[in-house]
Amino acid sequence: MLQRPPAEPGMREDEVDTPALILDLDAFEANLDAMAGFLAPTGTKLRAHAKTHKSPIVALQQMRRGAVGQCVQKVAEAEALAWGGVTDILVSNEVVSPKKLARLAALTRLSKVALCADNHDAVALIEQAAEAAGLRMTVLVEIDVGAGRCGVQPGPEAVALAQRIAGSPHLIFGGLQAYHGSAQHIRTPAGRAEAIASAIEQTRRTVEQLRQQGLDCAIIGGAGTGTFRHEAASGVYNEIQAGSYAFMDADYAANEEAPPFRHALFVLAQVMSRPRADFAVLDAGHKALPTDSGFAKPWQRPGLRYVGASDEHGNLRVEDGVAPVLGDKLRLVPGHCDPTIDRYDWFVGVRGGRVECLWPIAARGAMS
Amino acid sequence: MLQRPPAEPGMREDEVDTPALILDLDAFEANLDAMAGFLAPTGTKLRAHAKTHKSPIVALQQMRRGAVGQCVQKVAEAEALAWGGVTDILVSNEVVSPKKLARLAALTRLSKVALCADNHDAVALIEQAAEAAGLRMTVLVEIDVGAGRCGVQPGPEAVALAQRIAGSPHLIFGGLQAYHGSAQHIRTPAGRAEAIASAIEQTRRTVEQLRQQGLDCAIIGGAGTGTFRHEAASGVYNEIQAGSYAFMDADYAANEEAPPFRHALFVLAQVMSRPRADFAVLDAGHKALPTDSGFAKPWQRPGLRYVGASDEHGNLRVEDGVAPVLGDKLRLVPGHCDPTIDRYDWFVGVRGGRVECLWPIAARGAMS
Repeated sequence: MLQRPPAEPGMREDEVDTPALILDLDAFEANLDAMAGFLAPTGTKLRAHAKTHKSPIVALQQMRRGAVGQCVQKVAEAEALAWGGVTDILVSNEVVSPKKLARLAALTRLSKVALCADNHDAVALIEQAAEAAGLRMTVLVEIDVGAGRCGVQPGPEAVALAQRIAGSPHLIFGGLQAYHGSAQHIRTPAGRAEAIASAIEQTRRTVEQLRQQGLDCAIIGGAGTGTFRHEAASGVYNEIQAGSYAFMDADYAANEEAPPFRHALFVLAQVMSRPRADFAVLDAGHKALPTDSGFAKPWQRPGLRYVGASDEHGNLRVEDGVAPVLGDKLRLVPGHCDPTIDRYDWFVGVRGGRVECLWPIAARGAMS
Repeated sequence: MLQRPPAEPGMREDEVDTPALILDLDAFEANLDAMAGFLAPTGTKLRAHAKTHKSPIVALQQMRRGAVGQCVQKVAEAEALAWGGVTDILVSNEVVSPKKLARLAALTRLSKVALCADNHDAVALIEQAAEAAGLRMTVLVEIDVGAGRCGVQPGPEAVALAQRIAGSPHLIFGGLQAYHGSAQHIRTPAGRAEAIASAIEQTRRTVEQLRQQGLDCAIIGGAGTGTFRHEAASGVYNEIQAGSYAFMDADYAANEEAPPFRHALFVLAQVMSRPRADFAVLDAGHKALPTDSGFAKPWQRPGLRYVGASDEHGNLRVEDGVAPVLGDKLRLVPGHCDPTIDRYDWFVGVRGGRVECLWPIAARGAMS
């Protein structure tokens, strides 16, 4: 069951039902513009990650500002985007289920679609799906450039897998997926720079070895909000896969002295209990504000700290400043934007204190 | 957008699309029967908590086995239950938003509905909503019996609030909400027993003081899966609000040498990458298996450990035993059943290795 929208256009923000996912439209648009501005002089293109925003509406706004397409992690996300008018989609992830591959093959008749592989058996499964659908599918080789998760090793392993793809009658070798996920969250700029320098070098060498075998990489993709300036300046990567930049969250903000993007995403929550002078309870616990990357932070409410979450309750310590009263509504900056957005059915777009728009989060819960 | 069902009745479990929420129907029904059996000799009734299961289908099965009704935390959950045929619902939580109170008042024409209060201003808001709707609403006083979250103090504070409710023309005083949430997760049985002994004593005294003022408690409710046997045996509580017992999870199972309930809830996930001999990657990360109470545990797959979660990936360490191959599907026991169920649109009911039923999770995402 889709949940009812928590607002209607024209309402004041303090009339919005809680918990609600608030998108500050001025900040959001400034973030999209800022990323376009960062990338323009580098010649590197944005292929923004829809795992974060889960919405073809957001995707199309990114593409209007120059993004060449979108990344997703899941076939169901690709479907939601293609059905919503997005015409160039990369599944930046492995897909090994024949049923999912059949869905993805079907989708390539509606949108340009590519996916990743890191295994010869997986390439055989994709070839079967493409053959059964009577079309050709584009496959990138994922290389492990330091994250230690998916991916073949850069160099000869990657070349062998690319040759396997290129030699499959219904497949097209599409390039390299070279994302260093764990580097995004290294706390110091120097630490991130060092991790990405190594990723760039491994990618550069693999691209060169592929070229020696006559294999060109249409896409050399990777990077996230934490590191994209390094990949964009590398001369190696040609596509940047950042997603969080459009929204920001407490975790990314903690990594920079002057974050280049503004907080555009908030959860609006209400004070539902005020049992003690130094303590208030919000109607937003970890079902509303996932805690995998730490607690949310009250926005522009000095003296308030979100110090604990149960399923439906958020515990606020009142340290000083203006104490909240029963019924007060306040914005919180989520600890981690991706799983937070994925909890909601609607973005509530706000500008100048008023609700301007409601956007369904079409790929909410799209895990398959 | 509702996600497509990951299965059809009659399928083998290994044909189910991943990630999927699997309900082992034999274990689930055994758990419902076991709770009914535990409570029968005590005379205490079950008012199972729907914050866990989010489904009127589950609710009605609990009520067929003797549960007097359901608890919820959110008005939107109450709506989903009432619309699905549940006729007795307690919002075991505070509601202070006039719009939410109007929705709850409307719902009392369809189902028996009660809610909690811990504040005089909140009681005034409920009175206004009931008057505006032209009906009477039942309000329980929540007392803080040790959890330190919502609730007035037991004793005189609680009596004053109950008198305020009883003196409001459109309200009915319904009893006490006396749930010790944090005690559910104390690791030792002795620790839980001690915490609940104190909760019982505070509740007993408050009930007695209310009686001296001529105020009877129709409901004296509380308890969860971790402590219910104490409250049920107390002679004070008359309703038990357990929810997780129907499913169990890794967190609750860790607290008992011989848990009285079986694991009935699993997430089925697929091995999507096999980059190293000692490492496999599943298609279920923390969006599929929330980590607020720790990582999921592979079920009946010795030698496999779930050691890390990113948004869409679960990292499996392969320690020994039978190593998983690419495409393998395996069951995982969620760390915490409540937020896990709330991530999915469908329960896939399985018996004897086959899909027997699909149940929509009607209150999925019902946070308002």
